[in-house]
Order: sequence, then C-alpha cells, then structure tokens
Amino acid sequence: MTGLPQRFPAEGLPARVEIYEVGPRDGLQNEQTAVPTATKVELIRRLVAAGLRIVEATSFVSPRWVPQLGDAAEVMAALDRVEGVRHPVLVPNERGLERALAAGVDEIAVFASATESFAQRNLNRSVDESLAMFAPVVSGARAAGLRVRGYLSMCFGDPWEGPVPVSRVVDVGTRLLELGCDELALGDTIGTGTPGHVQAVIAALGDAGVGPERLGVHFHDTYGQALANTYAALQAGVTVVDASAGGLGGCPFARSATGNLATEDLVWFLTGLGIDTGVDLDALVATSVWMAEQLGRPSPSRVVRALAGGSGGS
Amino acid sequence: MTGLPQRFPAEGLPARVEIYEVGPRDGLQNEQTAVPTATKVELIRRLVAAGLRIVEATSFVSPRWVPQLGDAAEVMAALDRVEGVRHPVLVPNERGLERALAAGVDEIAVFASATESFAQRNLNRSVDESLAMFAPVVSGARAAGLRVRGYLSMCFGDPWEGPVPVSRVVDVGTRLLELGCDELALGDTIGTGTPGHVQAVIAALGDAGVGPERLGVHFHDTYGQALANTYAALQAGVTVVDASAGGLGGCPFARSATGNLATEDLVWFLTGLGIDTGVDLDALVATSVWMAEQLGRPSPSRVVRALAGGSGGS
Repeated sequence: MTGLPQRFPAEGLPARVEIYEVGPRDGLQNEQTAVPTATKVELIRRLVAAGLRIVEATSFVSPRWVPQLGDAAEVMAALDRVEGVRHPVLVPNERGLERALAAGVDEIAVFASATESFAQRNLNRSVDESLAMFAPVVSGARAAGLRVRGYLSMCFGDPWEGPVPVSRVVDVGTRLLELGCDELALGDTIGTGTPGHVQAVIAALGDAGVGPERLGVHFHDTYGQALANTYAALQAGVTVVDASAGGLGGCPFARSATGNLATEDLVWFLTGLGIDTGVDLDALVATSVWMAEQLGRPSPSRVVRALAGGSGGS
Repeated sequence: MTGLPQRFPAEGLPARVEIYEVGPRDGLQNEQTAVPTATKVELIRRLVAAGLRIVEATSFVSPRWVPQLGDAAEVMAALDRVEGVRHPVLVPNERGLERALAAGVDEIAVFASATESFAQRNLNRSVDESLAMFAPVVSGARAAGLRVRGYLSMCFGDPWEGPVPVSRVVDVGTRLLELGCDELALGDTIGTGTPGHVQAVIAALGDAGVGPERLGVHFHDTYGQALANTYAALQAGVTVVDASAGGLGGCPFARSATGNLATEDLVWFLTGLGIDTGVDLDALVATSVWMAEQLGRPSPSRVVRALAGGSGGS
C-alpha cells in the first residue's frame, strides 16, 4: 500500500537511531476513549510485530490519577515477551515500583518536571520533593537490575511559567541523572521548542558533562515543530527519539493537537535519511489505522493519512 | 492571543528569509469551495497587513482549466498595491502573459515539471514542449520589465513515475533558468522528500552553477516533512521559502492532506531560530481563522489550531 522515500543520507547524522515508542502509554493516557486491556495488549503486540524494539507499555501510577492505565498489571501479564524488545513502564513512587516489580517489568521510567508549576500540578510537590520521591525508586530499581529512564517535562516552555531557562533544564536534568538514571529524556511537553533551542539545551548539558549518548528527545507536534526539532537533535548527536504510533494522544479535532510526534512521520524521515529503523511502515500504518478505529477517530499522523488512502481510520 | 517561541539562533543559517506566500493562488486553486472575488481580495489585503511581503495573488491560466481562479483580472484590479509588496501571478503561455500585462502585474511565475508524466497531465505537452511554450513568455515578461519565477514541480518524487533522479531536476531546472527566470522554485509536489534529498538536489544544482541564492523551496506537508526539509534547505543557504497561510489548499479531512507548509508553522519556526520575518503572527492566525470560516472547515495548520484556542475555524 505504500512506497517509501528515496534514501539520501545527510552528513553528520548518527548511523542508527532508536525509536522509543510511547503510544500505548503516553498516547492512551491522553485519549478520551477508554481502551480495553485486550486492545492495549493487541496494540503492543502489533507494534512489536511491525519492528519497534522499545515500546513503553503502561504506567504504574495510581489508578486514581490515571484511570486509563489502571490495568497496568493485567497488561504486563498478558504481554508476549519478545527477545530483544524492551517494555519500559512509568513508575512514580515506591508503591508503584513494588507493583511494577511484582508484574515482572525489567525497565522503568520516572518523570520529573523542569518547572515548579508543572511539578506541583503533575506530582503535587516541588521539584526538590519530587526528586526526593524518585531517589529510592531509582536506587531500588537499579538494585533489582532494572534500566531506568528519567523523563524531564517542560524543557522548552511551560504553560504557566512561559520561557524555561536552559540552566534550569541542566540543573534538574543532571540531578535526575545523578539519582542513577541511565537516560535523560528531554520533553517538549507543550511543543513550543524550535531547533536552535533544542541544540542549545543539548549543548548546555554537554558542557555539564552529559553527552548526547545519554539523552533521548520527546517532542510534541503542537506547533508542527517536532520533526525539525528531531533533525536538530540528531545533528547534535542524539540517537534516541520518542514517538507515538499514529500520533496517539493527540486528537486532530480537539482544542489543540497536543500529541506526540507520530512514529510513522519519524520513520518516513529516518528512512529518507538512510537511517535504518527496522520498522515495516506498512504494518505500522495498518496498526495505527486499526487503533484509530478502536478510538473512533482518524489518526493525526500525516503519513498515516497519506498512506492509508483515506482519513486514517474513520 | 498568542505567545511566541523563545529565540535561539542556530549556526549556519541565513540572517534573513523571505516567505513567499502562495495561499491565495496555490491554496485556493486546490480548495473545493468556490471563493468570491471580494473574499480573495480581502484575504490578500489581510496577509499584507499581517506583514507578508510576497503574496502570490492569482493565476492567468485559462478559466477552463482552473475555474477557481477565473477572476484573475478582477482580483488584480481590486488589489491595493502597497509599497515594497510583491504580487506575482501564474502565467502559462503568451495569452496568459497578455492578460497579466493588461492587468498591470509586475511579476510572473511559469510552472514546469521535472517529469514527463506530470508535464503531460498538467500542461498537456512534453517537458521540451512546455519549455518551448514558456520561452516567449519569459522573454516577453522580461522585456516588459517583470521579474520571473520558474516553478519546477515533482522535484522529489512523482506519483506516476516514482523516484525522480536528481540529474533530471538539475537538467530541467537549469534549462528553465536559462530561459531567463530570476528564480527557480523547487517543488516537492507530493511531499515525499526528506532533508538529505533536499540537500542533494541543492548541492547538485550548485555543481551545475546554480547557487542557493537563485533558489526557492516549495514543500508540501503530505508526509509531515515540510518543516524539516525547510531546515535542511536553510542550512544549504536557501533564503526563499514558500508557504500557504493556514495551510490553505490542504483539507485536514480529505483523502490526503496534500497542502503546502502552513505559513504560521514556518513563522513560528523562523522566529524561534531568531530569523526575522516581519510577520505579526497574531494577525496572520486571525486571517487564517477567518479564511477557514469562509471555507467552512478548520485550518490544517498546527500553529493556527494551537493559537486560535480551538479548531482553527469551525
């Protein structure tokens, strides 16, 4: 059903990029529609079958906070584990870590905020208090042999505070890594960042001793900048890029399209640059069309709409 | 109503970029809805008031081919001319040039195809025959003191032929310039291009003696690549970028979103990079929201949807 772009490698880009798929967690967490456990498991199975090697599966946040993902243990229990495929899960606190360990996870992610405003709203505590909350989670996870990712939200702008100083991102980001995280994921949660800003943050982290090999980037396409920002991040040496299959989590008809970069748009981009992703784009698009049908609305991914020969699911 | 991105200049980019606004011509030509002449004139007036300095106004193609723009002479007659603002118009042949000159235009654009398939379908003649058709148009326009742009379609892919060789783009592009065009606009008509491909085409043209100062880029966002491709083109020294206000010409709900890069998304991007555009983003967004209301459907521009605080017009 598709076609793929011609391959034209560009200079100064990494030979390999890891796509960190967040659709089943970050995507579904932000969808209005409740999704049955079996559908979540089938989504993850299809994403893995399409060639994605890192698929964030769910969140062990309290179901009172995020009811959409209240079936985290059931999802993990039903997942087929495929050799070489990683399934990180979100964990907010020690209780969440206990539940995640009981569910047999082998990789977790904690989620801090670069700004006080979002730390208060998302975690109900200050940045310092949230780092203190994460400290035993990270050390406990590492003691159990788990890999740990540290998400940092609001790295490029904050809806309450406006501009976020680069120095602030460096400060909180390095402290998050010092807790023992293997990787720092820079989140442009409201999508306002632009390529020079992305490179400034990466350069400042480099000056602070955090090289691009320890970073991931998590861009939202709210202002259409996500792929240009990805290009800037790759040019700065980053090799881990977050994306959400079919743009899950961003409704094309909602008040604003706050979704993540669509995985299909990223795969098209990387393939054109001659960077192997291992993803079967046809299978991925088919998965996103199927998922859009489950959600009862089309996919906001442009590649999905172009290749699915229709509205991408409705 | 907005906010603007923080300014973070990136290295190796031009200090100034000209936005070549194509909404009133390329956008409206591809809209299903018929737009009254007065609305077209008001759209152009608002775009100029928002700070755009190049606004392609209409097309002197035969109304039998493009009925949407059959009122070209009326539009030109009704336009307020503002000092320093350019209003190129499309002209296909000598008859069109006569009509355009009679209407008092001071800048035209001809439109060739890099591929035989699209030349036949769009112009009903071969590439050679179409260049022969344009030759007296370009020389006649220059003799009358008009600036001439040469559009080249299908530079990165063709829906009938698939991959388009870079050598083909160089061949037809240089011949188009040799007719006397001041500028060559590289069109990614189906939106399949990616940044390495963009840089390969620009580099090959440079090898053939056509520097980036003679180029414009015209990207479609069908696969979500337009802004990343723009970034690649700027890094290669291009300073003229086409865009369509509110993404006019690409319906977000249609079979595929084949629209041009949205001007608002481009302005956000350039502003973030510290490149002055002279555009008042609030005024531009308001114009696109107004135009979307005239068309009875929301704008596909992500910036419009984010900043208009709603669906961007419906």
